[in-house]
Amino acid sequence: MRRIETLSVFPEFFEPYLSSSIMGRARAKGLFEFQAHNLRDWTHDKHATVDDAPFGGGQGMLMKPEPIFEAVEAIQSRFARPAHVVFFSPVGTPFAQHTAKRLAEKERMLFVCGRYEGMDERVYTLADEIISLGDFVLTGGELCALCVIDALVRLIPGALGDEMSAQDESFSSGLLEYEQYTRPADFRGMKVPEVLLSGDHQAVEAWRRASSIERTRRFRPDLYEAFLEGGGHDQASTS
Amino acid sequence: MRRIETLSVFPEFFEPYLSSSIMGRARAKGLFEFQAHNLRDWTHDKHATVDDAPFGGGQGMLMKPEPIFEAVEAIQSRFARPAHVVFFSPVGTPFAQHTAKRLAEKERMLFVCGRYEGMDERVYTLADEIISLGDFVLTGGELCALCVIDALVRLIPGALGDEMSAQDESFSSGLLEYEQYTRPADFRGMKVPEVLLSGDHQAVEAWRRASSIERTRRFRPDLYEAFLEGGGHDQASTS
Repeated sequence: MRRIETLSVFPEFFEPYLSSSIMGRARAKGLFEFQAHNLRDWTHDKHATVDDAPFGGGQGMLMKPEPIFEAVEAIQSRFARPAHVVFFSPVGTPFAQHTAKRLAEKERMLFVCGRYEGMDERVYTLADEIISLGDFVLTGGELCALCVIDALVRLIPGALGDEMSAQDESFSSGLLEYEQYTRPADFRGMKVPEVLLSGDHQAVEAWRRASSIERTRRFRPDLYEAFLEGGGHDQASTS
Repeated sequence: MRRIETLSVFPEFFEPYLSSSIMGRARAKGLFEFQAHNLRDWTHDKHATVDDAPFGGGQGMLMKPEPIFEAVEAIQSRFARPAHVVFFSPVGTPFAQHTAKRLAEKERMLFVCGRYEGMDERVYTLADEIISLGDFVLTGGELCALCVIDALVRLIPGALGDEMSAQDESFSSGLLEYEQYTRPADFRGMKVPEVLLSGDHQAVEAWRRASSIERTRRFRPDLYEAFLEGGGHDQASTS
């Protein structure tokens, strides 16, 4: 079974999300197992210290190397198959749907989540991969890990009720998803496009395809450009 | 006081994160107040239905327009000052540090979080702003909202213990942050650069500046290019 682990000073954060809704159902189906490790378990002082002041001065505290090294090594030693170790940092590769697809194939993963101002640079020698969630700064890596876990778990076959539903959506084809509507057909004067009510499946498909292309052109000219360069056929947006 | 609200079918998800660590301390200091609304409170059937099948067929369920309209209107009516309403969608503007800075100035914000396969397109007429967290697909908007809330709250003056610490970090100057080290000076043969141990503050500053520039050049040529175009002076990376 796929095994996902986290290492963090805030281990209690993950469980509520990963026990609920689609994540909780995927776990109950046995599609993955999850364990949150507490970094403080690998400290040896009374205060379970994981941070220290930066050399050279400056504000804030950095995460110390020793507990992280000890923890990753101990966690790795528990199973014969080593975990793919992921750290989060602004220097990492920007996270994208193709990364989630690739990670969804891994049998064992460990996400190491920092807090405070950052980590001692030497800890990154433990990383198989460094991911950046985007060009913004968060308080810690826990939210990054949860986003990555969410994105990859829903790509595990069987995680969504319906095997097909992850294939249709934005980024999976290189285009944004088409506009979608549900009842009522007329809501406060805002009407659902008639073709969607027509029952003509070919016309619906054509409309959806046009809607995808038009939205991509309008909102994501970068993806649209790549789509045109690929000859206007569906393709992986991010490979 | 800044007021941050969420609308979602998973309202219990937010509180643990926003009560802990830096977020919890910022809230305890009165820097923001938070309320999570349950979208199901604005349904009128026994099953509190918030989703329905898409017109035109296809897998998955869409979030219905009525509860979302009713909820946003009701939430807006509770205070004289209207909330800045944020939705999440792949068609939105990619989230970046400058967005967090801008949102940190808002006095009242409402983050509307979808679940299921998406939302009826008409709900986006309620949005003052649509944000995309990145080119990946998540199960719901809750994680997006929490990332955005985290990123903006830590920019509120006083949220970090130390007023300066948000200014030094990646993306705030257009460059990635420099390499950082803490004790021990020698860890398993990996040594901290000597200059950081020298006590020579000018030399430390010069080393850090060079480290920032070198990391940006190596890992984020796009930011480096913008930095050079700006004459090599610090600047907002994302404006």
